[in-house]
Amino acid sequence: MKRSDRLIAMTNYLVEHPMELVSLPFFSETYGAAKSSISEDLSIVNRMFKTEGIGYLESVSGAAGGVKYMPKVSLRNSEAFIDKLCMQLEDPDRILPGGYLFMSDILGTPGTIRDIGRLFASRFADLNIDSIVTVATKGIPLAYAVASFLNVPVVIVRRDPKVTEGSTVSINYVSGSSKKIQTMVLSKRSLQPGENVCIIDDFMKAGGTINGMKSLLKEFDANVKAIGVLAEAEDEEEDRVVDDYISLVQIKNVDSSSKEIEVIKGNYFN
Amino acid sequence: MKRSDRLIAMTNYLVEHPMELVSLPFFSETYGAAKSSISEDLSIVNRMFKTEGIGYLESVSGAAGGVKYMPKVSLRNSEAFIDKLCMQLEDPDRILPGGYLFMSDILGTPGTIRDIGRLFASRFADLNIDSIVTVATKGIPLAYAVASFLNVPVVIVRRDPKVTEGSTVSINYVSGSSKKIQTMVLSKRSLQPGENVCIIDDFMKAGGTINGMKSLLKEFDANVKAIGVLAEAEDEEEDRVVDDYISLVQIKNVDSSSKEIEVIKGNYFN
Repeated sequence: MKRSDRLIAMTNYLVEHPMELVSLPFFSETYGAAKSSISEDLSIVNRMFKTEGIGYLESVSGAAGGVKYMPKVSLRNSEAFIDKLCMQLEDPDRILPGGYLFMSDILGTPGTIRDIGRLFASRFADLNIDSIVTVATKGIPLAYAVASFLNVPVVIVRRDPKVTEGSTVSINYVSGSSKKIQTMVLSKRSLQPGENVCIIDDFMKAGGTINGMKSLLKEFDANVKAIGVLAEAEDEEEDRVVDDYISLVQIKNVDSSSKEIEVIKGNYFN
Repeated sequence: MKRSDRLIAMTNYLVEHPMELVSLPFFSETYGAAKSSISEDLSIVNRMFKTEGIGYLESVSGAAGGVKYMPKVSLRNSEAFIDKLCMQLEDPDRILPGGYLFMSDILGTPGTIRDIGRLFASRFADLNIDSIVTVATKGIPLAYAVASFLNVPVVIVRRDPKVTEGSTVSINYVSGSSKKIQTMVLSKRSLQPGENVCIIDDFMKAGGTINGMKSLLKEFDANVKAIGVLAEAEDEEEDRVVDDYISLVQIKNVDSSSKEIEVIKGNYFN
């Protein structure tokens, strides 16, 4: 195979398999080229990935070595994406009764979801995450997007047990904003003890739901290594019960009467 | 930029933007190369995508022309993937009380979900789909995977209305297997009248849920152009109420007592 052909095939393979160690012999055999040629190919790919701001190739030396595509997005790309997202969210038509924001259209766009996932994955790539945990429903696409870049499985906490989950562990918790007692369940088969997990959700106000997930994950002896939320909003009535989180945007001053809303960058950029 | 560099950047751009018409001038300006060079690059990319079985580039001529990456996976790749999936599903440890099957681990693997999405997208790419519709919860990741390859938004039907959805339309329907009356709601803002939609779900027995979705979509004047389910299972007690669907696998003879289960290819391959 010619270099030009190999570069196309290898680029596609690497972006489809982020965070996966690929050995040089694998590429060498798959594309019928000497290891020295493959090495040169990889250094071209590495340079271009950096130029494009989509990450880099990490070399792991030794007998079990190879390369790993680290999908770390450049700060310039991240900021441009979040600036656009803030503008989209500031549309006053999004304001719903009670000061909530309509975000389903944004959360329904696969390209946007993928870009959000890429941002969180860039930040959490070095934490040895074993699983992404989210709670049904709106956090699910975000969790899969992060998981696809970190190459780890997704575990979905539910509000109600279902027969197709097998046996489950459940906890009761107090929701932050409404002070109601709610239930969360997680299938017993979903996590191994001692796993490093990352919690992903779309929205956080006081943080009651995320706190509930933390309690549930304690039952599985999981280590919560990171918490990522797309949007955080202030809750005037209550203090936040979660503080170690990363947010992409911060929703401020939703005023239903004057139809005004301010959305700024989250603490991701601090 | 050198050809080798351009090929890497263009490959990444195209796989990140499936089903999107990209003009030659865009590539020409972005990568600082003459249109004739870009044309040659694209024909190399096209040939390699075909060789790798991941689709092809469709050329659209004229002033508003360009190329579009059609993510059509080869039959060989599809069959290999489904054979592996059938084997994974035939593990007797998956059998749950009531003859249900534990699939959350498979549905939790982003790579698998992406491959499933690619298969459906390959089949439905020519149907001018405007939106993918699914029902919470398990169908969501599959719906996003299909949508990401078709470059269209996802619309999620819920069992319960939520304040963040704004005003909704709801219907009652009779579930196929349990004969219970259930409710489905969909945000009024989610679909425009006359949209072509594709329904995606993880599992279908008698088809009551999918039939419910069809009724709900009628309220939105949507045209259901395609229905894709990951797994279909036989329901001894009832005839199927949906017949125009595509399934990837078919679950047969789940025997909880003898711990036996047979999983075969779905009608996708007929």
